[in-house]
Amino acid sequence: MPADEFSLIQRHFSNVGSVSPHCVMGIGDDAAVFNLPPGYQQVVCMDTLVAGIHFPNDTAAEDVAVKSLAVNLSDLAAMAAKPDWFQLSLTLPSADESWLSSFAGALQEMARYYQIGLVGGDTCRGPLSVTIQVAGLVVEDRYLTRSAAKPGDLIVISGQLGDAALGLDIKLQKVRLTDALATHCLRRLNRPQPKLELIDFLRDHAHAAIDISDGLVADLGHILQLSKVGATLRQTDLPVNEWIKEHRQYHYALYGGDDYELCFTVPATHMSALQDWNSENPNCPLTVIGEIVDSEYLLDTGNKLTKLSSSRGFNHFG
Amino acid sequence: MPADEFSLIQRHFSNVGSVSPHCVMGIGDDAAVFNLPPGYQQVVCMDTLVAGIHFPNDTAAEDVAVKSLAVNLSDLAAMAAKPDWFQLSLTLPSADESWLSSFAGALQEMARYYQIGLVGGDTCRGPLSVTIQVAGLVVEDRYLTRSAAKPGDLIVISGQLGDAALGLDIKLQKVRLTDALATHCLRRLNRPQPKLELIDFLRDHAHAAIDISDGLVADLGHILQLSKVGATLRQTDLPVNEWIKEHRQYHYALYGGDDYELCFTVPATHMSALQDWNSENPNCPLTVIGEIVDSEYLLDTGNKLTKLSSSRGFNHFG
Repeated sequence: MPADEFSLIQRHFSNVGSVSPHCVMGIGDDAAVFNLPPGYQQVVCMDTLVAGIHFPNDTAAEDVAVKSLAVNLSDLAAMAAKPDWFQLSLTLPSADESWLSSFAGALQEMARYYQIGLVGGDTCRGPLSVTIQVAGLVVEDRYLTRSAAKPGDLIVISGQLGDAALGLDIKLQKVRLTDALATHCLRRLNRPQPKLELIDFLRDHAHAAIDISDGLVADLGHILQLSKVGATLRQTDLPVNEWIKEHRQYHYALYGGDDYELCFTVPATHMSALQDWNSENPNCPLTVIGEIVDSEYLLDTGNKLTKLSSSRGFNHFG
Repeated sequence: MPADEFSLIQRHFSNVGSVSPHCVMGIGDDAAVFNLPPGYQQVVCMDTLVAGIHFPNDTAAEDVAVKSLAVNLSDLAAMAAKPDWFQLSLTLPSADESWLSSFAGALQEMARYYQIGLVGGDTCRGPLSVTIQVAGLVVEDRYLTRSAAKPGDLIVISGQLGDAALGLDIKLQKVRLTDALATHCLRRLNRPQPKLELIDFLRDHAHAAIDISDGLVADLGHILQLSKVGATLRQTDLPVNEWIKEHRQYHYALYGGDDYELCFTVPATHMSALQDWNSENPNCPLTVIGEIVDSEYLLDTGNKLTKLSSSRGFNHFG
């Protein structure tokens, strides 16, 4: 007998993650109810991942779960907001028990790790797609935007760029790499790690921030447009893996999406805070890759300056 | 040239509805930011409508927009929460300008009418589906649940039941009605009107509430299960259109989904408040259709008592 909608939801999703201390009532009624803590503001966003568009159709259920939550937590991190709760709308071709169990298990593990709890949503039949909506809390008036970058700011990137796009080309058999590097890049594609450990640092030091989902050039371009400034990027300073560096395949780092690293700008006077962070946090390195300038958007490749266009990035309707 | 994702969003969805007075920052950054007003709690829910499952593939863009927002506002009404803001994730096979413009226009009109503003979300390519997430505000600790019905409570229904399910059968050419009644039922199917005008009444008089999305028997069944009580429904008291009454096709009212009326329970001592409501609000009639009892779930058809099962209702995986 096929599982009915209610028992499906109850069995797999009744207890995912850590319950928000502000949650008065979670799953099981028409809607969830929350107390609103004083001294904070709420930060919300929502993203949909569609099979065949945002991830290949044969992607493992665990990877779909991790990615769906990660892309949203990454947006919260870019606002300097701490995760509070989330909702899930899951559209599935059939009530496949084993798929659901793998999906819910991975979601559970990730939600507990990042201390966020599932409070509601929807399951329905249809082509596979996952919508997650997250809510976070930020100290009053201390949220970050894309619009506050200033000429003279350093442009900083967390982690490494280009791994996820390279992982997709490995999966599509367009490039061949050593096993170790291929495994690393595929993991980066399928299991993005939102950089929530940077929230306090961002709040204390950053002017503007964004997460890298559509590629560095496009996403930094949003900061430039909204802040009405330009930028110079130094290609050889981009934090990339050894294969990209050796073969000078920097386009993966410049235009490849799905890395979910953070890109932010900090006043040059905060350079020592960056250095302190790097010596204390070897697992989450920060790299200065350029500067905010008055107007033009340029790439310094080492031997020439190239004009960049912020409209070149991943585009679902392009 | 196909419109790119960013200009699509900006053009059609940059200014939908009434801006929440609590919104600090809306569309255009990684996430939206809100102030949390003291004295209130937040109520949130999220629903997905998939083409071919929740609405026929040839449904007009305007109807898809209205229904997607209505089903969520209806959940807020059932909690006695006032709409505050919403997010939209729209998955479309192609960036069809005329479809988008019709969809956004209808969403705009409805969002303004119900005083709720679009604050963020996502658009992507894929099989047509719409996810809307709404947030509302309720006076602290005055939200309604499904779990507070008490034996002796009157069971009350707003408006009329069965029209939407009958509308679907008209669309599928399973039944033929007069033009006027067919038009009425199709409108009820495609343009549900969430009963937000009942919020204050519910907060002041109701014990438990739910909205009718999966059919009266199934949805009232949720109240009974969570409140650990039973109910007796009187079939001939169900508020139905003349065709259902004349042909005794009460199954439309009992098991048909998509009406988005409210079903709630009130202490019998509040009967005069119900009568006052009805004399002051002829456009939103309330009808007593039965009573909450200790245990059994029964339908009184006039000449016999039938046992009801709360599991019979619309089931997306059934």
